[in-house]
Formats: sequence, structure tokens, C-alpha cells
Amino acid sequence: MKIVALAGGVGGAKLAHGLAQVLPPQDLTVIVNTGDDFEHLGLSISPDLDTVCYTLAGLANFETGWGRADESWNAIANVKRLGGPDWFNLGDQDLGTHLERTRRLREGQSLSQVTRDFCQAWGVDVTVLPMSNQPVRTIVETDQGDLAFQEYFVHRHCEPQVKGFRFDGLDQAEPAPGVVEAIQSADAIVICPSNPWVSVDPILKVLQRSTVQMPRSIVAVSPIIGGQTVKGPAAKMYTELGIQPSALAVSEHYRGLLSGFVLDEVDADLAPQIPIPTLVTNTLMKSLTDRAALARAVLHFIETLP
Amino acid sequence: MKIVALAGGVGGAKLAHGLAQVLPPQDLTVIVNTGDDFEHLGLSISPDLDTVCYTLAGLANFETGWGRADESWNAIANVKRLGGPDWFNLGDQDLGTHLERTRRLREGQSLSQVTRDFCQAWGVDVTVLPMSNQPVRTIVETDQGDLAFQEYFVHRHCEPQVKGFRFDGLDQAEPAPGVVEAIQSADAIVICPSNPWVSVDPILKVLQRSTVQMPRSIVAVSPIIGGQTVKGPAAKMYTELGIQPSALAVSEHYRGLLSGFVLDEVDADLAPQIPIPTLVTNTLMKSLTDRAALARAVLHFIETLP
Repeated sequence: MKIVALAGGVGGAKLAHGLAQVLPPQDLTVIVNTGDDFEHLGLSISPDLDTVCYTLAGLANFETGWGRADESWNAIANVKRLGGPDWFNLGDQDLGTHLERTRRLREGQSLSQVTRDFCQAWGVDVTVLPMSNQPVRTIVETDQGDLAFQEYFVHRHCEPQVKGFRFDGLDQAEPAPGVVEAIQSADAIVICPSNPWVSVDPILKVLQRSTVQMPRSIVAVSPIIGGQTVKGPAAKMYTELGIQPSALAVSEHYRGLLSGFVLDEVDADLAPQIPIPTLVTNTLMKSLTDRAALARAVLHFIETLP
Repeated sequence: MKIVALAGGVGGAKLAHGLAQVLPPQDLTVIVNTGDDFEHLGLSISPDLDTVCYTLAGLANFETGWGRADESWNAIANVKRLGGPDWFNLGDQDLGTHLERTRRLREGQSLSQVTRDFCQAWGVDVTVLPMSNQPVRTIVETDQGDLAFQEYFVHRHCEPQVKGFRFDGLDQAEPAPGVVEAIQSADAIVICPSNPWVSVDPILKVLQRSTVQMPRSIVAVSPIIGGQTVKGPAAKMYTELGIQPSALAVSEHYRGLLSGFVLDEVDADLAPQIPIPTLVTNTLMKSLTDRAALARAVLHFIETLP
């Protein structure tokens, strides 16, 4: 079964890693959000791509889910000492990634070329694709004005109240090479437990700009468990947009798109309200085993879909 | 006695540090070569300025003379793993300096503003000035073509045979703010034991583009001891240019400019051949004490000059 996974950062990376554990590498393509990408200290930073690649390569910090394991923080400490911006966590190993990506992009390589080469260097054998090689920039519209995503997310700790979202550059963005082909040959799409508003929607909006035929099976895994998110502001965003955060709300977010929905056991009582086939299972991925177990459960679930 | 020191990298930084130990901070200005500056991995790197500032701040690696003490190398290790250029040693703390300098230069700050702010952050209380805020780029003309200085020095390990030197951008370069004023109010200029061809000449050539009146006392300390350099390619350059490398050759390099010359005890026999006042003393600075001792000796020597 050929699978395309759509992923944002930490939660998406975990399920992508689970899928990579149980599928042959040639049967998995991970399409990653680049709406969070930004320029900082002159560097081209792709937080979700890096989180997915580090996770798949076994290089990620297992505790935080982002950044590198065994990381040092000496460069940013000196930037801080010199009075420079230190609000974005840049570990030293991670900086190497940003330096080399920035160098290659300036040389004229595309983000997907860079991502392919980095995956090869890191021993990632599944295919990881940025959603687009053209910049799409998620803007969070808030009571404190329109904020670039990392400004909202990291610099302001998600404190401003969200009013809506905008994706600058979307009109000029095409799916990256390989994205359409992967979806056309996929048996199913798995929408990973990433933030629907700012991690998955940008990918879906880029896909909508192509005429790609979606596979019959599209399942989403709820990033909201018991009304809360494991990490990130998705639940807070739902609340501020006037929607009760819940797995149900996530399923409605994707209404019309899905053929199946996966929610956590703690939300089992919501399943009857969801008008498509559901899988109720443990979706909280605390260990590597949890990741593989959820991946297996999702694949079995897809096989049962009409 | 107000002193201006002209300095390149390691050797110059050591004597500048000695002078900083024995002079009140307001009486010492260090003018630093920027001909070695270059862009690498998108960063604006000023090797001599950093070496001088790190040394004066007590942050330098005492063993190598360049880079930071207690340095880590995690960023460049990842750049290397990703197939990027790793020929220029970039420590993690050092990277922080380059990132913040690059950010400020792109914001429109001048190199001298950045240097002043960095010195303040690092607790350097003597005045350190780049020779110019405009880019001057030392080009080493060799049997393998014209090479940017760091390409010759670091990437090719000084192996190409030197035929001459060129300083691109010199025609558009003015002394940085403060340089002319420091020289006008100085009682003496000390040319530190730096490479005459590629560390001191660029500074002198920038100064020649102004109408600044040089102080009566100008003394140079030979970077060549017993026909060899403590560090760097100066001796090799002299040989390849058909000149026997020696303290005598250095004194002739600066002919017409100097009022006094300082050479090492091992070269005492050369002193009678030098037609200006000489000081023969220990010039090999192995310890902090050596640096201060040489500085004291040079200052006393200046006081004896007519």
C-alpha cells in the first residue's frame, strides 16, 4: 500500500516516523508544511522539514520533539551576549543545517533538491518533500496585528488572540516536484496529527492549486486529544476562533475531504457524532513503539475503508 | 603616551594585548587589518578583527591564538556531514559573532559600529577600529592564479607560490571613523609583529589615501625571528618573492617609514645593518607576561627615540 503522509512539525513527524518503521521506504512519501519557514539571522530556516527529517533520521531530541539530540547552544549564547536576537532557539548542530541550506538555496538549488540531499546525508530512506519550492508564508491574524508564524509561535509564545490565517505567496506556489506524482500513485493519504490551521491547511491549499486526483482513501489523525493538544496552539486557536476544541472539531475542519478519521480512546464518546468511519485507538505517541503501533493501526483502518 | 597599534591577526593581537596591559585604555587605539575579511556560508567574517577582540577580551584560544577558548565545532561538523564547505574553521561560539555581525551589517550598521558594540559587550576597554568600513580585499597573486586571501591562506594552506599582492577595493576605501583622529593625536605608532605584506600593508595603504599627518615615532616589531615566522606565511612569501626572509628584510620593507625597529635577541647580529635605532629584545610572546614585557620594552624604546 503506497502512502502519502501530510505532516507539520512534532506530532506529524512522530506519525511519519511510525509509518517509516512499518512501510517499505519506497511506499512512503512525506509531504511537509513549509508555511512556517522563515528567514532569521540571514538563515533560511524550515522548522517542519527539519523536525520531520531529524525525527526520521533518529537525530531529533526525543524529549522536546524538535531540534537535535545532544545539542549545544554556544552560537546563540554569543549572539545573545552581543545583544542580538535570541528568541528563536538555534542549536549549534541545527545551525549547520541552516547554514548549508541557505548556502545551497543562494546557489540556486531548490528546497526539494536540498531536502533530498540532506535526507541522503542523514540516511533517511523514505521520500520527504517540501509542499512547494516557492515560499508560502503563514500569517497569523491576531488582535495584535498580522504576525509571521514564528513571530506568533516562538517570539510571542502564541499569546496574541487569533482571528484568522493567511498564506502569503500561495498564489505563486506550485506543488514541489514529486508531490503530484506521489499523490497520483498513492493508495491513501494520511493527514498526520498536526495543527489543522497552520500545518495541514497550507499543504492542502497548495495541493488544491493543482489538478491532482486525490486517492479514494484519505484519513486524518486528530491532533486534539481530550480537548487539548499534545503540543502547540491548535486547541487555543480553535477556542479563539469560537470553536470548541475537540477531535470532533478537527473532523469537521476536514469535512468533505476525509474517508476516515482516527481519534484517541479518551474521545471514544465523540466517535458516534462523526459521520464517516472512525478508528478509536491510542494516538498519544510517547515512545517509538507507540509511533509504529499507531501507524499500523491507521494502515489497518485504511484497509477496512470502503 | 598615546599609542596607535597596527595589527593583523595572531601576532598583532598578542602585542596589542601586551600594550593593553600596560597602557591606560584611553591611550591605546588598535587599528586592525580587514583585507582578510570575506564572505563564507553567507556570513561576513573578519578574522583579524575577531582575533584582536577575542585576545583583548581574554576569550581567545591561547593555544592556537585564533578562535575562541572552550570552543565547540558542532555546526561545522553538520555542514560537513551535509556535504558543505568545511575548509574554514568555524567554531560554534565564533559563529555567533559572525551571525550577529552579518545581521547588523545587513541592517546598515558599519563595521566600526559593530566592532565598537562587540567590544563593549566583551568588556574590551581599549579602542579597536577596523582600518576601513569599505571592503578592501587582499588578493594573493600566485602561480595558481589570483586567490582571495582566505582561499590562499586557509583553503590552500599557503601552498601556491606567491608572485605579488593586490588590494581590491582600495580605491574606494577611506579610513574608518576614528582612525585619522587616533593617528593625529598619537605620540607613536607601533606596527605589531604581523605579516608585512598582507596584514600591515593594507592598513598603511588605506592610511596613505588620507592626508593624515603621521606621528614622529613609528616603530615596527619584526614578525620574523631567526629567519622564520612564529605563525603564518610571511617568511615563505619573502622567499618566493626573491627576498631572504629576515628581520632585516622586514626593516627594509618599511624603509622610509620607521623611526625605530625592534628585533629578537636571536637576530642581534642583524641590528648593526639596520640604519635606524633598534631595540634587541625577546619578541617571542609565549605567555601573557611576555606580551606585557615586550609592550613595556617597546614603549621604553619609543621614549629613547630622537
